[in-house]
Amino acid sequence: MVIMTATSSHSFQPVLERIAEEIERTPGRGRPADYIPALAACDPRRFGMAVAELDGTVYGVGDWREPFSTQSITKVFTLALDLAREGDELWEHVGREPSGNPFNSLVQLEYESGIPRNPFINAGALVVTDRLQTRTGDAAGELLAFLRTESGNPGLDFDKDVAASEAANGDRNAALAHFMASYGNIDNPIPALLDQYFRQCSITASCADLALATSFLARHGIRADGTRLLTRSQAKQVNAVMLTCGTYDAAGEFAYRVGLPGKSGVGGGIIAVVPGRCTLCVWSPGLDERGNSVAGVAALDRFTTLTGLSVF
Amino acid sequence: MVIMTATSSHSFQPVLERIAEEIERTPGRGRPADYIPALAACDPRRFGMAVAELDGTVYGVGDWREPFSTQSITKVFTLALDLAREGDELWEHVGREPSGNPFNSLVQLEYESGIPRNPFINAGALVVTDRLQTRTGDAAGELLAFLRTESGNPGLDFDKDVAASEAANGDRNAALAHFMASYGNIDNPIPALLDQYFRQCSITASCADLALATSFLARHGIRADGTRLLTRSQAKQVNAVMLTCGTYDAAGEFAYRVGLPGKSGVGGGIIAVVPGRCTLCVWSPGLDERGNSVAGVAALDRFTTLTGLSVF
Amino acid sequence: MVIMTATSSHSFQPVLERIAEEIERTPGRGRPADYIPALAACDPRRFGMAVAELDGTVYGVGDWREPFSTQSITKVFTLALDLAREGDELWEHVGREPSGNPFNSLVQLEYESGIPRNPFINAGALVVTDRLQTRTGDAAGELLAFLRTESGNPGLDFDKDVAASEAANGDRNAALAHFMASYGNIDNPIPALLDQYFRQCSITASCADLALATSFLARHGIRADGTRLLTRSQAKQVNAVMLTCGTYDAAGEFAYRVGLPGKSGVGGGIIAVVPGRCTLCVWSPGLDERGNSVAGVAALDRFTTLTGLSVF
Amino acid sequence: MVIMTATSSHSFQPVLERIAEEIERTPGRGRPADYIPALAACDPRRFGMAVAELDGTVYGVGDWREPFSTQSITKVFTLALDLAREGDELWEHVGREPSGNPFNSLVQLEYESGIPRNPFINAGALVVTDRLQTRTGDAAGELLAFLRTESGNPGLDFDKDVAASEAANGDRNAALAHFMASYGNIDNPIPALLDQYFRQCSITASCADLALATSFLARHGIRADGTRLLTRSQAKQVNAVMLTCGTYDAAGEFAYRVGLPGKSGVGGGIIAVVPGRCTLCVWSPGLDERGNSVAGVAALDRFTTLTGLSVF
Repeated sequence: MVIMTATSSHSFQPVLERIAEEIERTPGRGRPADYIPALAACDPRRFGMAVAELDGTVYGVGDWREPFSTQSITKVFTLALDLAREGDELWEHVGREPSGNPFNSLVQLEYESGIPRNPFINAGALVVTDRLQTRTGDAAGELLAFLRTESGNPGLDFDKDVAASEAANGDRNAALAHFMASYGNIDNPIPALLDQYFRQCSITASCADLALATSFLARHGIRADGTRLLTRSQAKQVNAVMLTCGTYDAAGEFAYRVGLPGKSGVGGGIIAVVPGRCTLCVWSPGLDERGNSVAGVAALDRFTTLTGLSVF
Repeated sequence: MVIMTATSSHSFQPVLERIAEEIERTPGRGRPADYIPALAACDPRRFGMAVAELDGTVYGVGDWREPFSTQSITKVFTLALDLAREGDELWEHVGREPSGNPFNSLVQLEYESGIPRNPFINAGALVVTDRLQTRTGDAAGELLAFLRTESGNPGLDFDKDVAASEAANGDRNAALAHFMASYGNIDNPIPALLDQYFRQCSITASCADLALATSFLARHGIRADGTRLLTRSQAKQVNAVMLTCGTYDAAGEFAYRVGLPGKSGVGGGIIAVVPGRCTLCVWSPGLDERGNSVAGVAALDRFTTLTGLSVF
Repeated sequence: MVIMTATSSHSFQPVLERIAEEIERTPGRGRPADYIPALAACDPRRFGMAVAELDGTVYGVGDWREPFSTQSITKVFTLALDLAREGDELWEHVGREPSGNPFNSLVQLEYESGIPRNPFINAGALVVTDRLQTRTGDAAGELLAFLRTESGNPGLDFDKDVAASEAANGDRNAALAHFMASYGNIDNPIPALLDQYFRQCSITASCADLALATSFLARHGIRADGTRLLTRSQAKQVNAVMLTCGTYDAAGEFAYRVGLPGKSGVGGGIIAVVPGRCTLCVWSPGLDERGNSVAGVAALDRFTTLTGLSVF
Repeated sequence: MVIMTATSSHSFQPVLERIAEEIERTPGRGRPADYIPALAACDPRRFGMAVAELDGTVYGVGDWREPFSTQSITKVFTLALDLAREGDELWEHVGREPSGNPFNSLVQLEYESGIPRNPFINAGALVVTDRLQTRTGDAAGELLAFLRTESGNPGLDFDKDVAASEAANGDRNAALAHFMASYGNIDNPIPALLDQYFRQCSITASCADLALATSFLARHGIRADGTRLLTRSQAKQVNAVMLTCGTYDAAGEFAYRVGLPGKSGVGGGIIAVVPGRCTLCVWSPGLDERGNSVAGVAALDRFTTLTGLSVF
């Protein structure tokens, strides 16, 4: 990995700096998630953004090396790790269609007999975690190891306070898990599953870490060490699911404005992929009413407009 | 326009022929739409496919020059024509999110106060037609003129029998229009609006015609004569809406398998865009249970797999 | 018919006067319906109440002889008139279950394939009107004749201005009719059906008129002249549907507080039945958020509490 | 308590015997509930029916002294016991409207922010149990003691196997409880609450026991020993909720056919109330597709038709 300094003359550095300046001047940043203390305490004015090229070169601006709570962003990696192990069988247990409803909705889950619409709504992520847990015995540990390796940052870790807060506010996820269990779509004991799930959400990482960890999706499935995690077809599939389902009930809006596969978390982070070219991660804790970072979406919008690097 | 013959040695011709052979050997083609006689009479074994390069060169295989009923495919062009005229104001009257429900559903329309989720569900297309009608006085005529010019085929026309059949089966669309009118989201008298709407759906065109007519979306908004219809940003937007909402309740599946912006019609046609590179149109009348051509989706799947030309 | 004067010493007169005094002292009357001018102009302080005994004796208080817009109250009589003609076959076209949703909802109609949940939501009343129209050629005229005869008031009539206002605001009902027609559950041309429907809603009558016209339901199906309109079993059925479905989305609340079969209208009227004993009609134009008269429900609540004449 | 023998000449005995004969000749009894072994093993040809007069006289026919699994029937008694303790405050935590959806539905619970529509859907019964548990420390024990006293049968008890089976199939109820807890509408720890809930459902009793235990509702709130459990108004309220919500998604149908407040259980039992006159309990394990006893509903339908003792 080659980390470029802020004075780098490389092509992506000027565009990041221009975006940071524009964001700086923009009023209105939304509000941090307030359901757990660790997130509520974040300053919505924080902003960081990183771009990682396929060779591991990283450019960054603002708080790009500041660790933040990854939250739902990790759902992408859990999906990739399970898909690598079980392949298409996974898709018999979770769908690939946009939910058309807020991210915690039980409605469609009921209409569709316990099969969540996609791996990025909470119900779907619980199913994927359950399956990875069955295959590895330690889904969260597997995820952490993967993120450490791909980011080159062995210091990445769970945040025990965040995990405990999530567990204390975990009734909705417990309801989802029990509901799917009633349809036979959960294999592990629910307390153990929830523990794995909440630990995954609690991992702390920076924009630089996440841009690097996402690179295998821009490299069509190839990990940082050159080995293959996903087939080219599987990498395409993960990118497609990110584009259509990665930003809660705003996937259409995100595709329309940004035009890249992306995945957001309520910690204020968003990762995005320019297949064959680079990956991005942006962080700013203020959220819009649909749970996506206000400054984060704006920054990615500007990036694709300024560089022309949308998939469309 | 340069039409390549079936004996052309150009790069896309072999892949089209290979796909056609594979499709020929594949059992199971689905069933034609049966709600109007003209569609029900189609032979599900028919298959045609065309690719148009940005310069107007067209490659084709099978029934690629055979006219078929375009149906919902025309919703893309009506959207582009209205967006070119009124710009972002359109998006106050129709959304950009996947519907998460079958294409005629009234449910979300009610929850969202008469604003359809996107321009490609019937309710959304009625709103777009209504707005284009207000701006032109003849939405269907405007659409036909555009398709003739872009395809270079002045023989394109409405099919009066199909339009009459649609009108005779038009109670659902009348219900949608009245329902949105109750929210103030329709401007024109409903009988006149429905007449425009059904005529648009009735246009007959071939794969070659539609691949060429779609080219402005691969050229980032530039028409065949070099003039600009949409801004680069608007072209990106239309492509994004096609990817997330273009294939009824199977947009996630289509993105996952094909990985291209696409729009299907119950006549069995599908158009698709490889931004900056080419456009495709495939036709085969047998549909799956979600209203998309079985052989059409399979052919596009093979195309992106064989050429690597997906956006992901 | 024997009309008792306000100075009558009969048993129901004191309780009516006590209720009127209590209502007079109660602040907060809700707001009149405002979607048509004739209703919006009503003074929410108006209040009238009448009780009719089985022999036609009527007691009244306040504005009990003042004509008001009956609106949805007439749905009860249209149901009875059609049920008398076609019997149980009607129930293959409309259900008997509470809707669990606001009165204009299209949601359940879609889930249940065009069969409305009950005859008192708008969709159900359209079906009943359609069927009575098929059987009589003039559903609204049949209804008016019935109300004139049972009330002994030949002066009852349609209010043309109200009917015209309803038609001008008729997009929702047009949507419902077209939607059910798409399922084959409407027989007549929709403009003709809507004309019949809006005329029914427009009938003007007083509390005295409506209490008398409802008496056949307290007499187990016997009309004022001693002939039978409904079988005893059918009269029971109509009363049951009133109790479970008669007050929009507040049927449970109405049963809980009042404990009588009842039917409300957005004109502020409510009719109620004490089987085997008497009928009531109350009117006060101020509505609660669910479309029922605030003072009307309160007055009926007091009536059953003071007299013990609930069915429970 | 005076138990009449099968040779009694009293007025209700002949009608019960006539009904039993008719039921005997009727083919088609539905199917027993199959989600737990104890219910699946029941013979759908079993049939018993009892009528209890206000003074404790009981008439019976068939298997009227055979204990069966009460299941949801106990929800009525738990409601009455909690209502007697906390009064109207209960109604801030559970509604009184029909659900319009199958009995396990999570949909409306979500739309209505964790407030179940009524006390007889599972979610509502969990809330009532939770509140009675908070007030007594042993909701199930309180319920059992009440049933023993009112029925005069000290032998009534929990069925430990049934309770264990319910717990083993308890994921849906666990999901409901966690979901409501996420809205702050559950006070007790969920495992303890579920234990109380499943024990209540497991109580075994006969038609004679249940007809007697229900008598306080026909006596306007007065218990067997002459003391008052509910105010007259509260007794009316419980009866009203039974009529509008007591038979899952078939409350309208039950009101229409039977015309009495009633509550069914998936064990095949149904209790019903003729206010001021008598109570009934019928049992036959074969259920229709909405979870109500086929022969039970038919028998109650015949009873009200033959005796005229409907509330309508």
